[in-house]
Amino acid sequence: MENSIKKNSQITPREENFAQWYTDICLKCELMSYTSTKGFIIYRPYGFAIWENIKKYLDEEFKKTGHQNVYMPCLIPEHLLLKEKEHVEGFAPECAVVTIGGKKELEEKLYVRPTSETLFCDHFKDILHSYKDLPIKYNQWCSVVRWEKTTKPFLRGSEFLWQEGHTLHRTEVEAREEALNMLKVYGKLGKECLCFPFSLGKKTDKEKFAGALETYSIEALMPDGQALQAGTTHYFGDGFAKHYDIKYLDENNTLQVPFQTSWGVSTRLIGAVIMVHGDDNGLVLPPLVAPTQVVIIPIRANQDKEVLKTCKKIEQKLSKKGIRVLLDNSDKTPGFKFNQYEMKGVPLRIELGPKDLQNKVLSMIRRFDYLKKQVSLEEDIVKLVVKELEEISNGMYKKAEQFLDSHIIEVHTEEELKDVLTNNKGYAKMMWDGTRETEDLIKERYQATARCLPFNQMKFGDIDPVSKKKAKYVCLFCRAY
Amino acid sequence: MENSIKKNSQITPREENFAQWYTDICLKCELMSYTSTKGFIIYRPYGFAIWENIKKYLDEEFKKTGHQNVYMPCLIPEHLLLKEKEHVEGFAPECAVVTIGGKKELEEKLYVRPTSETLFCDHFKDILHSYKDLPIKYNQWCSVVRWEKTTKPFLRGSEFLWQEGHTLHRTEVEAREEALNMLKVYGKLGKECLCFPFSLGKKTDKEKFAGALETYSIEALMPDGQALQAGTTHYFGDGFAKHYDIKYLDENNTLQVPFQTSWGVSTRLIGAVIMVHGDDNGLVLPPLVAPTQVVIIPIRANQDKEVLKTCKKIEQKLSKKGIRVLLDNSDKTPGFKFNQYEMKGVPLRIELGPKDLQNKVLSMIRRFDYLKKQVSLEEDIVKLVVKELEEISNGMYKKAEQFLDSHIIEVHTEEELKDVLTNNKGYAKMMWDGTRETEDLIKERYQATARCLPFNQMKFGDIDPVSKKKAKYVCLFCRAY
Repeated sequence: MENSIKKNSQITPREENFAQWYTDICLKCELMSYTSTKGFIIYRPYGFAIWENIKKYLDEEFKKTGHQNVYMPCLIPEHLLLKEKEHVEGFAPECAVVTIGGKKELEEKLYVRPTSETLFCDHFKDILHSYKDLPIKYNQWCSVVRWEKTTKPFLRGSEFLWQEGHTLHRTEVEAREEALNMLKVYGKLGKECLCFPFSLGKKTDKEKFAGALETYSIEALMPDGQALQAGTTHYFGDGFAKHYDIKYLDENNTLQVPFQTSWGVSTRLIGAVIMVHGDDNGLVLPPLVAPTQVVIIPIRANQDKEVLKTCKKIEQKLSKKGIRVLLDNSDKTPGFKFNQYEMKGVPLRIELGPKDLQNKVLSMIRRFDYLKKQVSLEEDIVKLVVKELEEISNGMYKKAEQFLDSHIIEVHTEEELKDVLTNNKGYAKMMWDGTRETEDLIKERYQATARCLPFNQMKFGDIDPVSKKKAKYVCLFCRAY
Repeated sequence: MENSIKKNSQITPREENFAQWYTDICLKCELMSYTSTKGFIIYRPYGFAIWENIKKYLDEEFKKTGHQNVYMPCLIPEHLLLKEKEHVEGFAPECAVVTIGGKKELEEKLYVRPTSETLFCDHFKDILHSYKDLPIKYNQWCSVVRWEKTTKPFLRGSEFLWQEGHTLHRTEVEAREEALNMLKVYGKLGKECLCFPFSLGKKTDKEKFAGALETYSIEALMPDGQALQAGTTHYFGDGFAKHYDIKYLDENNTLQVPFQTSWGVSTRLIGAVIMVHGDDNGLVLPPLVAPTQVVIIPIRANQDKEVLKTCKKIEQKLSKKGIRVLLDNSDKTPGFKFNQYEMKGVPLRIELGPKDLQNKVLSMIRRFDYLKKQVSLEEDIVKLVVKELEEISNGMYKKAEQFLDSHIIEVHTEEELKDVLTNNKGYAKMMWDGTRETEDLIKERYQATARCLPFNQMKFGDIDPVSKKKAKYVCLFCRAY
């Protein structure tokens, strides 16, 4: 456990300045870079590879559940955006608008897509004819642009990468199920891939998506006690379909309107991974998203040629098994390398030197808890590494789960609510009267919002402690990113 | 071979109207859809899946050759684009320009990226410090926007999907090698994945990329005798680097300027696949890019329950082996299904009925040459299908190669040149004097351009038949998309 107390001097300690710690990691770990386009970032190879791994996991899940990928135009004509009033009011203020094309003023403005509901609707109108065409379950991987005044790498930017699912269904029941099922897929992503739990629940009317009847969300709790909305799914009813004239003929040759959903997660998830798992030595990456899962560092390889040979053999074996492994044979010192790969959050480090060779052992050191194990070279190293990576995933998840569990605090009085919210103690779990007024009051007094109405909750009181009115729902209030 | 003469009534015969045949395939096979954004298309699931398969193949090749993926902003500030004069003159006329953001007029115009050289240069300036950082080999998958007056699905559009590689090297030799090596990767893509040969060569000065010292291209010949530029690689020398102030310190602590390349292919390749392989019954897809590689059609399954059972077993076995297989058990007639999947270009069809079961056989019918084989159900079906798909790939390639070989015509007089070009007989392979004047003359007289100076060619004359001047290069002239 020697390394667990060592601090990386390149990175501001979390306790000292959490925001600076975060920015340090983004830049020093080469996840991103600022650009000449204000508010826009470059996803550098190490950061982009994390997104590629998340994408790969999700894309398989989407396809397994019957979704197909498509690609829609990146520009939306103004008339199309204007069709759904609530939706356009939600998005128009954050849009980038193209007014010139081919050196000429355009007759109609084109909006760089902030989301593609309107394009999907316009397309659905063209391709949906019969009940036999339903359900239609599409997904798109793309970038979207939303004009943001203050930006923060991965968490809030004028451009981000995401996926947006858009589906059409015959019945309300089926569409509602889709919105909930995709929320579950996101929950599974958290557990299996990102190694932390999300709180799943329904958004309040105030917080829901422009044009949706229901919005569900996955909320993640950050170490600074603030919540991060990490993804949403929406049930639209038939509102969009009616506005965009999407209809089909049923078995009786009667025109019907379908029910619709959309759902998305974005590169925000990278920000969540950084904050949830990172420590004062840098990134701590979950094995499934880590660009490099295992780094092998030969020690004093110049003293014994067999050291490098053995390291290469292990590298090949791991690589053949599909493990993302890196052998660092550069002339930097082992200490420097340890620091580098710890900062970069590589989940597992293997060390091997001449003495180890004599004793026929190697050392494996886990990044997340610095646990060091010596294992015999005669054992099946690939099997051990696979097992170790699984244990790391489980260990990281448990740690994050414990943090979350100890930071959901039932509040019974406004004093308690205030204490949790103003001291960033996590979620204030409160019996809420269900009114917009109470939400507004809490926002005004404590700069906190209703994050979600979590599923499957036991009521623990009859009175809303803020309004003193009859309580209706269990609600998580928190300050948020 | 019964089906080879049957015509699909939904699709205009190629001989009748090639352009209409192409559009029919794009629409009827549900590869794309027109949109409310003029000049922009939707990549529908069947079309997008072809792109995903091409992308998968290339992405692996890029990573194998040491390239890393990144993502750059979709908008470029005007000052950045203006830095390289030749480049901006090449692109400014085709740009879409954002002038409004967040409801306010912007102080500086932002260009929707038509290509990202300028952004990469700006980033390279920030991240390159030492000779130890070189080479830097990046690639980006994204969409680009170029304002086009006339558009055609996949071939020319205001937005297309592509990859753009951008690399920095210490020496001119290494950078030139990179530009040529990536051209070879594209050549390999043609042979192994798209099943047709490209002509590889160098572009003339007139035809090269704005800002490049050398441009190489892969040219594909279409059945209508016109050429299609399907991808390019560029050697930039140190011109961009100097304009964008990219420098590094060498071993002697001296500032040096690196040498640069870029290279790209786009969804144009889908258009090439459609035209090269398609026939009057529709698409003919190469196995590696086909969204569905094998379709299983049960015949009279209601007469014998074992029919469907056996089909399902085969489906499972193929699917387990990673083959993209579809079992169509819908209530449409077999004839209707045959037509549908032929139109959609599924490389291999398996048929199985009660009679086949009795005889313990099934039929496999290849799309590209309609060859039908009966094979015993006791054989290893997976192995047979894998072999069949390989044979289809090889057969399709050979067919395309024969077409190309018989349509590269050596011309020794202007009469012969005229005959080839005005009668769309393919490439006119001509001894060219290397002057812009001759290129302009040929363009003016025959609406044809120099496609490339193909590699490894034997000279076959001393005089340019158009200018009557001394011939310098073997050049392929052709009308082009």
